[in-house]
Amino acid sequence: MLDETTSGVFTIVATPFLPDGALDLDSIDTMVDFYANTGATGITILGIMGEAGKLSAAESEAVIHRVAARTRMPVIVGVSAPGLSAIQALSATAMDNGAAGVMVAPPKTLRTDDQIISYFQLVAETLGPTPWVLQDFPLDTGVQITPRVLRTIFDTCPTCKMLKHEDWPGLEKITALRTQEAEGARRMSILCGNGGQFLFEEMQRGADGAMTGFAYPEMMRDITALTLTDPAHARDIFDAYLPLIRYECQPGMGLAVRKHILAKRGAIAHATVRKPGLVMSDTTIREIDALIERQEARLSAL
Amino acid sequence: MLDETTSGVFTIVATPFLPDGALDLDSIDTMVDFYANTGATGITILGIMGEAGKLSAAESEAVIHRVAARTRMPVIVGVSAPGLSAIQALSATAMDNGAAGVMVAPPKTLRTDDQIISYFQLVAETLGPTPWVLQDFPLDTGVQITPRVLRTIFDTCPTCKMLKHEDWPGLEKITALRTQEAEGARRMSILCGNGGQFLFEEMQRGADGAMTGFAYPEMMRDITALTLTDPAHARDIFDAYLPLIRYECQPGMGLAVRKHILAKRGAIAHATVRKPGLVMSDTTIREIDALIERQEARLSAL
Amino acid sequence: MLDETTSGVFTIVATPFLPDGALDLDSIDTMVDFYANTGATGITILGIMGEAGKLSAAESEAVIHRVAARTRMPVIVGVSAPGLSAIQALSATAMDNGAAGVMVAPPKTLRTDDQIISYFQLVAETLGPTPWVLQDFPLDTGVQITPRVLRTIFDTCPTCKMLKHEDWPGLEKITALRTQEAEGARRMSILCGNGGQFLFEEMQRGADGAMTGFAYPEMMRDITALTLTDPAHARDIFDAYLPLIRYECQPGMGLAVRKHILAKRGAIAHATVRKPGLVMSDTTIREIDALIERQEARLSAL
Amino acid sequence: MLDETTSGVFTIVATPFLPDGALDLDSIDTMVDFYANTGATGITILGIMGEAGKLSAAESEAVIHRVAARTRMPVIVGVSAPGLSAIQALSATAMDNGAAGVMVAPPKTLRTDDQIISYFQLVAETLGPTPWVLQDFPLDTGVQITPRVLRTIFDTCPTCKMLKHEDWPGLEKITALRTQEAEGARRMSILCGNGGQFLFEEMQRGADGAMTGFAYPEMMRDITALTLTDPAHARDIFDAYLPLIRYECQPGMGLAVRKHILAKRGAIAHATVRKPGLVMSDTTIREIDALIERQEARLSAL
Repeated sequence: MLDETTSGVFTIVATPFLPDGALDLDSIDTMVDFYANTGATGITILGIMGEAGKLSAAESEAVIHRVAARTRMPVIVGVSAPGLSAIQALSATAMDNGAAGVMVAPPKTLRTDDQIISYFQLVAETLGPTPWVLQDFPLDTGVQITPRVLRTIFDTCPTCKMLKHEDWPGLEKITALRTQEAEGARRMSILCGNGGQFLFEEMQRGADGAMTGFAYPEMMRDITALTLTDPAHARDIFDAYLPLIRYECQPGMGLAVRKHILAKRGAIAHATVRKPGLVMSDTTIREIDALIERQEARLSAL
Repeated sequence: MLDETTSGVFTIVATPFLPDGALDLDSIDTMVDFYANTGATGITILGIMGEAGKLSAAESEAVIHRVAARTRMPVIVGVSAPGLSAIQALSATAMDNGAAGVMVAPPKTLRTDDQIISYFQLVAETLGPTPWVLQDFPLDTGVQITPRVLRTIFDTCPTCKMLKHEDWPGLEKITALRTQEAEGARRMSILCGNGGQFLFEEMQRGADGAMTGFAYPEMMRDITALTLTDPAHARDIFDAYLPLIRYECQPGMGLAVRKHILAKRGAIAHATVRKPGLVMSDTTIREIDALIERQEARLSAL
Repeated sequence: MLDETTSGVFTIVATPFLPDGALDLDSIDTMVDFYANTGATGITILGIMGEAGKLSAAESEAVIHRVAARTRMPVIVGVSAPGLSAIQALSATAMDNGAAGVMVAPPKTLRTDDQIISYFQLVAETLGPTPWVLQDFPLDTGVQITPRVLRTIFDTCPTCKMLKHEDWPGLEKITALRTQEAEGARRMSILCGNGGQFLFEEMQRGADGAMTGFAYPEMMRDITALTLTDPAHARDIFDAYLPLIRYECQPGMGLAVRKHILAKRGAIAHATVRKPGLVMSDTTIREIDALIERQEARLSAL
Repeated sequence: MLDETTSGVFTIVATPFLPDGALDLDSIDTMVDFYANTGATGITILGIMGEAGKLSAAESEAVIHRVAARTRMPVIVGVSAPGLSAIQALSATAMDNGAAGVMVAPPKTLRTDDQIISYFQLVAETLGPTPWVLQDFPLDTGVQITPRVLRTIFDTCPTCKMLKHEDWPGLEKITALRTQEAEGARRMSILCGNGGQFLFEEMQRGADGAMTGFAYPEMMRDITALTLTDPAHARDIFDAYLPLIRYECQPGMGLAVRKHILAKRGAIAHATVRKPGLVMSDTTIREIDALIERQEARLSAL
């Protein structure tokens, strides 16, 4: 079960599809194995950057079931939905399948501090004993949550165990949260997203690890492991991956890039993105392949 | 089945809940009867202004089933969802239960004309032969659709039969669409929403009726029936309802106001709005009750 | 000078243009006289709903100068701008010309409570001793300000004297603010906008008057004067104006409607709206004229 | 004068302030010299990422005057404003001071293709013979402009000479525009922004250069010069700068980071950002300084 001390690398997993758009359940198995073999210590499914919104309720359930059956790593399930009933129903399915916890992002309509606090308190009440992750992703949700508001939520919702940090810019927020903890606030697990763009600095600021879907979990494994013990080496590794991280972080493109790489690496059978979704041009694919080739050369030279 | 000539009064129905937030299926029966007795010629369920987003998939299905079993009026089912799979699944349930068609609003992320056209073409492809309504509601969705873009969608998607018009300001749009039709575009059914605030002018501009949830379907029945034949009398009736229409149109409040009135009129057993939702103060309730009392006096005096 | 007890009817004045789009300074004189003769007790210029954004800095100055020279009513000048320097420069011009105070709306980028409080504290610091009005208009700005945040701003910024209230829905906010005052908060002047749509209820909730640009200041004069002393008569008057109030409140259309009526009533020479702006169709103009005719008949019958 | 073939490196210049927030005109001279000496072939002032919005009209004029007096490089002046009168006034000042052209971003309210086309046609009409740059920056403006809409604007507005490209993701847009040109559309100058994050790929796709404010114009000089002739070397240089480019691209932080570096490099006397603006923590400054140190080491090793 997820708790306040959870650390490591939770990869946000893609949902694999067949060329005709149907769920590719076999690829879930190979993908989960791939992640385990390349550095993941946990798995997050049905997140914002996945294609959770494109699945029917029955398909979401099939994904949860298949992933949970394949791995003994802790599994976090994204359950963000417009209403609490859907959140409750999906969470029940997740926990019944052995999930370690669920993850909730705020609806885009929230604005004031009070609205944000009330919403997450309702979520906590709805989830009962289920441990949950607060996903703080203003670039996508438009909802800005200050460290003080987070503290109020953490203080009043003991089942909230982790912050998925992807505010941007967000480095000062990590520092502010750890400072609040030094002054008496509850200790929280902080895993960082945003495609890994700031993972080196995030670890230096006090994060507990990464939760993002960059197609090389090795990067997250190495940076979380080495930043504090061998920062110069960690920087060398990080910089070798950075040109591709940057390319993958283009809004609306990340998923297609990621699936192309996962297919190329053998993790999934097809790079299919469900409609409506981006179809990459040959030029784009050549750019990605050139970045990968160069990345491999740089990593070998370290 | 819904077609391009459908006219009349489709009331957007509320979803009734028990005081503890559970679905109140018995009230669905009384509510559907109430609408039939007060002027509705059709029923729209699971729309934006209802609480569709707050239902789990199983609850949505239960609502469809109960409404369809109770009435022989045509039923339109709102199926807007973040992904096409969910749209497809909910539409199949709707049509299997005898719905007359489904209704789809655009996702909030659409911006350019091409994105809007492509999205609805994908929807049409996904829905197959199911007749559908395009819900044009920029105040809520942020998506602005010009008459020319609508024409392209209507021309390329023959299963689209109706526009739920709630652009605001939108009177000129009705005129533009009817002018396009006079110049050769396909004839479409246009039913108007926006709480009925402009129903008199909308009917004068060429609308075929109303599709909104104002708690007095009698108003929509009378205005759609009388505007063209007895405009002076229609205006008197409209003006008598207008103070309450205005009050109900306050964003984020309409549903609570509406349920209070429906409960007061005996259509549903409880005015409960599911969390997170507005709880009205005593002052607000007194304001509504005063408006109702005055409305009744003015109507009796006509 | 504006203070915490200011009450009455501040009309938001239009900026008159000649048919070629140039400033029509002569019409400023006739318009100011018209407002004084139809019930205004104050004047607000260069507001959001005016065309302040379409004026160059030199033109804004010319408008301030002309209005101030024509009237002895208190004049409030809208000075919202992307930066504090522009706010400071325009405020200095306003106060040098004898304005009673200035009005500031929040920039659209503000989100958290702390950002909102900090911004208005910076504004107060920038304005020095100048009395100012906080314009709370979320429909336009997207910034939502709770009663508690307003209280913090009012407590820490003694030069803030008035709230221009146009939250929507906003009736409960007036009650919350007056309740806070009963519990010890500083007394503030509250004038209400939103085109006058809720003026009757706003006065009942404790507002001090109106600040909006409805083309019949007589309505605002009568409702502010009569709501508490003769509510039944106030309601009759309000209801007679409501169909036109409703029509004028269509977003993006209000200004054109208003200028058409002001020109028709002889307050300004031309109904010109500066480009880019709405040009109303003949059908729209006929709808407005029909509403005016009917309004006059109803008012005469009272 | 700006034309359709303009290429090179236009740096977006910061506006220097004294510690008390007043304009630092002397630093304008040193900064302009610095840019000329580090690779700029042109200068862009008063852009979105500068602090144009924080200047009064008089201050904007002073900046234009000082920059124009100091350099013989072409100067482009950002003139985006809420209204055409302000655009016209600022453009006149710019051209009177010898500017090479002006730059206009769309207002945030534009949505449909027709609205976007009409707006820029009005801008072109307002500017008369002045050559202008269309700034396409959806991350900031929320306005999405397709290649087809751009083509219509370019075709109907011959005084539009350049696209400041900062769509994101935007690589395919460059290819689409160059393909349209190969099929007969007017040739346009395309300079790329977005902090330089994709400059290597942008040059490969057919861009004519860079227009952004990264504090090392040397990077833009080298990448625009070498990408097509010596791509392997260009990539090495680009990758050495990328960790800092990434850090500078954090939204809301870029300006403070940039001014810190410009002050450190002696280009301006003070890193002051005008209020309301970010004050960087010591931790942040240490992170930047570490990135600079590492960048210098990597560049020396090339």
